[in-house]
Order: sequence, then structure tokens, then C-alpha cells
Amino acid sequence: MHVLILGGDGYLGWPTAMSFSKRGYQVTVVDNYFRRNACIELDAGILYPVPTLIERAKIWYELTGKEIKIVIGDLTDPEVMRSFFTGGVEYQFAIHPTFAGIPQTVVHYAEQPSAPYSLINHKYANTTIINNLLVTNNLMFAVRDFSRDTHVIKLGTMGEYGTPNIDIEEGWIEIEHKGRTGHFLFPRQAGSIYHTTKIMDTDLLWFGVRTWDLKITDLMQGPVYGLETEESIYDPRLRTIFNYDEIFGTVLNRFIVQAIISHPLSVYGKGGQTRGYLNIMDTLQCIHKAASTPAKRGELRIFNQIMETFNVNQLAQKVKKVGADLGYPVEIKHFENPRFEAEEHYYNPTYQGLVELGVEPHFLTAEVLEGIFRVVAVYRDNIRKDLIFRGVNWLRDEKTTIQR
Amino acid sequence: MHVLILGGDGYLGWPTAMSFSKRGYQVTVVDNYFRRNACIELDAGILYPVPTLIERAKIWYELTGKEIKIVIGDLTDPEVMRSFFTGGVEYQFAIHPTFAGIPQTVVHYAEQPSAPYSLINHKYANTTIINNLLVTNNLMFAVRDFSRDTHVIKLGTMGEYGTPNIDIEEGWIEIEHKGRTGHFLFPRQAGSIYHTTKIMDTDLLWFGVRTWDLKITDLMQGPVYGLETEESIYDPRLRTIFNYDEIFGTVLNRFIVQAIISHPLSVYGKGGQTRGYLNIMDTLQCIHKAASTPAKRGELRIFNQIMETFNVNQLAQKVKKVGADLGYPVEIKHFENPRFEAEEHYYNPTYQGLVELGVEPHFLTAEVLEGIFRVVAVYRDNIRKDLIFRGVNWLRDEKTTIQR
Repeated sequence: MHVLILGGDGYLGWPTAMSFSKRGYQVTVVDNYFRRNACIELDAGILYPVPTLIERAKIWYELTGKEIKIVIGDLTDPEVMRSFFTGGVEYQFAIHPTFAGIPQTVVHYAEQPSAPYSLINHKYANTTIINNLLVTNNLMFAVRDFSRDTHVIKLGTMGEYGTPNIDIEEGWIEIEHKGRTGHFLFPRQAGSIYHTTKIMDTDLLWFGVRTWDLKITDLMQGPVYGLETEESIYDPRLRTIFNYDEIFGTVLNRFIVQAIISHPLSVYGKGGQTRGYLNIMDTLQCIHKAASTPAKRGELRIFNQIMETFNVNQLAQKVKKVGADLGYPVEIKHFENPRFEAEEHYYNPTYQGLVELGVEPHFLTAEVLEGIFRVVAVYRDNIRKDLIFRGVNWLRDEKTTIQR
Repeated sequence: MHVLILGGDGYLGWPTAMSFSKRGYQVTVVDNYFRRNACIELDAGILYPVPTLIERAKIWYELTGKEIKIVIGDLTDPEVMRSFFTGGVEYQFAIHPTFAGIPQTVVHYAEQPSAPYSLINHKYANTTIINNLLVTNNLMFAVRDFSRDTHVIKLGTMGEYGTPNIDIEEGWIEIEHKGRTGHFLFPRQAGSIYHTTKIMDTDLLWFGVRTWDLKITDLMQGPVYGLETEESIYDPRLRTIFNYDEIFGTVLNRFIVQAIISHPLSVYGKGGQTRGYLNIMDTLQCIHKAASTPAKRGELRIFNQIMETFNVNQLAQKVKKVGADLGYPVEIKHFENPRFEAEEHYYNPTYQGLVELGVEPHFLTAEVLEGIFRVVAVYRDNIRKDLIFRGVNWLRDEKTTIQR
């Protein structure tokens, strides 16, 4: 089976590529280095240097004898997207440069993934909207025009739902109203422009599924933590991009970095914000299970991709405890919340679908936390304190500009 | 009061500009001639030649002594949008070229408004997404950054709701689920890419309202018919752009044109598709009422802007009857439906909000239909039969391309 990974240079994209390649799939990866360029532009920092995609594909081939084909290209250009389906694609790296064929599965990570980035100012908001919507739309039209049997696995976010006062179902809800009933997408209202583009993606794909009988799985993922996967342990040069700054870092990864350099853990506001979390290894499991049991033609299948829920205070306490055991004195500090969000709220999401497909969760144990601490500690001297907290405040009354 | 009209060259934009100007408002209009250019590119035809915006503003000034300031510019460029709030704007036509001041009201019509256009192929879909989302986002950030008290009146569409099996409320619904309740945007699922961008607009604005306390009125409008307004009767050169083709023409206007040239009325499929309709004069009333009683800070106010509902067969019958009375022999023909839509369905929308604000509906009487027939008949020789039905089919299995 041929898997095409859009956004294959990112935090989840590259580990996904290796994981499919290891298991015998033909893998093609495309990326425009958006994340790397944004990290440079915004001085966001990366924990350790990461080889280019082409370099990583070469290392991978040397270690495993398996080919990952690489294309560096911008998927907001429809011709780039369509080339993977028409055969017009030009690989920047390939062991066998002939056309890999139309992919049976596309994993779509090629989105601007940061809420703070999307709210730096109007230009970053526009970039987020254009990038995320055009890539999704170009993909939808490419499968419509060339291969409706191709299964699209799209990464959504639990943030689409926000924090409603009712139980969150897996994508769909039956609504009874004035004596009649209807089946609808679960109501969504997001807390950032980025999260709102994910709502838009879902609406767009739902139109495509209804109209053209496409096969789509939309994975509403929570914040991911961790960095090591079964394949990255072969060689540290295969480790994924790891951000710990305010723009691209996810909360648990950030806390561990903060603990290691004795920066107080940056809890926003009261810290009662509850979310669903998962280990990067479980992201890979979820993608594999979704790929091996695809959605049907005409089905928009939605799973809530989280394995357990915590509030921010609970995460901070866990990091503090493990940090103390490892000899890091950890303080917890409540910062003024730069986000517009409920700091204490009802939160009861359903998330059984992926476990029923066979995913076996890695829970957030002390051992797991210790494992991340140990890898991050190797790069302790690379950590820049000035990147931890810079004050992108999306409520400000004046023009919002990032502190550089 | 200063009213800024985005998309002021369009079918509704120019009549709105005259209507506010007549009533003593300071009016600024901006447009990039998207509709005119698209009509040329797609060979869509316009019933009669329409003077440029600048020419129309000059005619208007000669007839009334009132100034409408004109800017020709692309609002997907954030700097164009922001210039109306910073004072950096350059007017292409103005009697008094000094800055008109920050608008108290913005009427946002500046969207690609055609469902068939959005589904010609992936490029037109992308254009629709980029245009509609960026204009809305640029507007949202401009009011956020410079004038949060400015009231934005945004044209949505009843098509956002689709045809659900439950009664359609005005924008919001209380959902009871597993013993808890929440207040949400009414569930929406649209029948085209264009309509889907309107859902996205609403989601984007709802984020802005919640986060920055903006003042937004979102008007879910049904298909509009008619062409004459209180101000256009001063001079036929002030009449609005009138399309009768498959891309930009609305159903009732199309039927009247078809009746006049003895083309069978083009009913798609069974003709049981029910929608809410309104007279162009009622669009103007609705905008005025919304402007004079603005939304509050932090309010996303939604009205369903329709005055009565009909199915397509009922519209065809009405046109046939009035046509016969006026001496036009009218046939009705059921064409294969190029759209993906239910042809018989439950439809029960609420639409009392605008009437409660004081709008006095013009219903679709025989007299109203006759009035439109009489104006269109003047331009009978301009009507091109080859534009009536060209077969933009958004279900086709092969690549969709417009028949030229």
C-alpha cells in the first residue's frame, strides 16, 4: 500500500513516515518546510538541530534499506497536490525515481498547527486560513477528480469542540428539537483562529463526502507529548522536531523543558483548563488503525484522538513530582492567561472509537515522563530561556505584535 | 453616520449605497469589480450595460447632490481594508477628497456569491475560499485593531443551514443532551463550496465576537429577486447589475428572463426544493433596520432574512401564470439536477426577527412579478439564449469544466 504524508517534516509527520516505512508500506512525504521557516522567522527555537527531510530519508535508507520518497513543495498550489495523483510529481529524493502510483491512503498533517501563531496579528491569521483551507481543498478536489477510493486521514483537533456544557461525542450528535430529530456534526466553537480553521476543514470535507462519496477519517486530536518513537531510537538524527517555545511547543513538552532549566512551570490563569492528551506513540497507533480499517465511500468518520484527560494543574503537579525525583527543583507559577478560555469548566468527552479499533494507550505514567525528561536533558545546553514566555496576547486592545 | 459598503458594485451593493446616501448617510463604497470580471471571463452576460462605479457615483451626484465616495480595491489585501480605518485610504472618486472618518457601520457584501461558480473546478473553489475568508478576516481584524464599536453587518445565507429535518431557528439553538444543556450556533451543512464559506465566515466572526467583544449582525439571506428600487427609478443608468445566466442569476430572475424569450423554465429535478425568498427592496429594508438598531458589543446577532417560502415548482407556476397574462407562452421543463440537494424535504424556518425590527415585507404578488417582467422586457433583445443553461454539473465523475 502506498501512503502519502502531507506535512511529513513536522512533529508528527516524520515519525509517521518512518512508522509506515518500517511496516513495509511505500511512503511518499511532501513538505514545504513551513514549520522550520516559521521557527526561524519567529526565532522560536528547536531543541536540537534536525537534518533536512532528504538527509533524514538517506539516513533512513542506510539504516533500514527502505525508501521514503521526498518532495519539497507547497500544497496550497493545486498543481503540486494534483501531481501526486496524475504522475507528474518530481521527487527531490527517491531511490527509485519512477512514479510511486496513486496513494491508497493520504495522511494530511500539512497545516499551520499553532493557535498562538494564528493570533500574532492579522497577517499570521491570514496565513493560517490560506494554508489550512487551500491544502485541504486541493486534496479534496484531487481525490474527487482522480481517485475517490483513496482514503484521506485528516488531523483535526479536540479544540474544534471547545469546552461545551454538554458531553462531547465523537463528531456527531442526534438533536431533538420541537418534536423532530436530526443527525448533525457535533456543535463546535473554537478558541483560536487556528482551531477555527480546523472546524472549517471539517465542514469542507463533510461537503465533499456528501457530494462526491469520498472516504474521510477526521481525527480530533488532543495535545501530543513525547518525542521518542520505535523508529527514532535507531539514530538520534531521526528524532522529530521538538519545540518548547510559546508558539509551537505543546504544554507538557514545555513543562518538562521548563523544569530542566529551573524555569517556573507556566500555568496560564487558574490552570483548571481540562483537555485530552496522548503520547506521540499513540498518534502513530491511531493513524495505523485508521489506515488499516478505512472509512467507507460516503463516510466522514470522526474519532476523538485522546487517551486520558487532565487539567493544566494536574500536568504541572505530575511534572513537578517526576522532576523532584530526578533532582530538578520545580516551581509552579500562574501567569496571566494570554488566551481567551474558560479556566474552570465542564469537560466530558467520549473517546472509545480508536481503542475499539485496537489502539492500546500509553498512559502518562511517571516512567513515561522520566523518559521524556532524560532525552530533553541531553540537550539542556541548547534550551533558550528567552523563548519560554514572550507574551503573544490575543486579547490585547492595541495591535498585537509578537515580542522579539 | 458613515456607512462603508464592501462589494458596493454588486447586485445588492449598489442599491444599498444609493439607499443609504438618499437617507443622508455619508457613504463609501469599495469594490474590485470581481463580479464584472468574472462575467467577462465566464461569458456570463449581463442584461444591460452598467456604468462603472465612478460613473454611477457621478450620475448620482448630478441627480441628488449627494456624494458617494468610491474606492476600487481588493479587500483580500489587508492594507486596503485597514486604510478605511487608519485614514490612509485613497478615493478614486469623491466630491470631498478628505478622509470620511472611521465607519460606524460596515455592510459586508464583498464575497464571491455563486454556488455554481464555486464548483466549476478546484481553481474556482480556491478563489471562492480565499476571497470570502480573507475579506471577512481582514474586516474582523481591522475592527478589532482600530474600532471595536463599528457595527459589522455581514451577509450570510439561509443555505448555511441546508435543509435539516428539524425547524430552523434564527442562528441559535438550545441543545439538551444526556441531561445537560448548551447554547450553540444552529447546526449547519451547506450544499456548495460557496455556501460552506459562509458557514466558515460565521464561525470566524463568532470567534471574534467572543474574544474581542465585536458587534456583528449576520443576515442569513435567501435568494433575492427583482431589480428596481426607490432610487434606481431616477435614472435607468442607476439600475443594478442583473444576471440571468446559470452562474450568477438567481432563480426567479432567471425564470422571468426565460419566460420572455420563450425558453422553458429550467426546473432542476423534481422542483420540490423549498427556500425562503425576498424582494430586493426588502434586502434594503433589512440592512437599514439592522444598521439603525445595531448589535451590542459582544453580540453575534443572527436573523433569517427571508419573507416567504416557496418551492421551485410554485415559483415556476407563478411565473407561468403572470407570463400568460402578459402574452408570453410559458412552458415548464424539468432538467436533470446538476446540484446535489434534496428535491423534496422538510423545511420550516423561523424568520420573525427582522419583521419585529420593523421590516414591512413586499410579498411575491402578481403585480410584483409583472413589474419585473416589464423592466426585463425592455432589454429583451439583449438576452442571450446560449447562456441560460450550460451544464455546470458539480456531481460529475470526470474533471468538471464549464461548457464554453
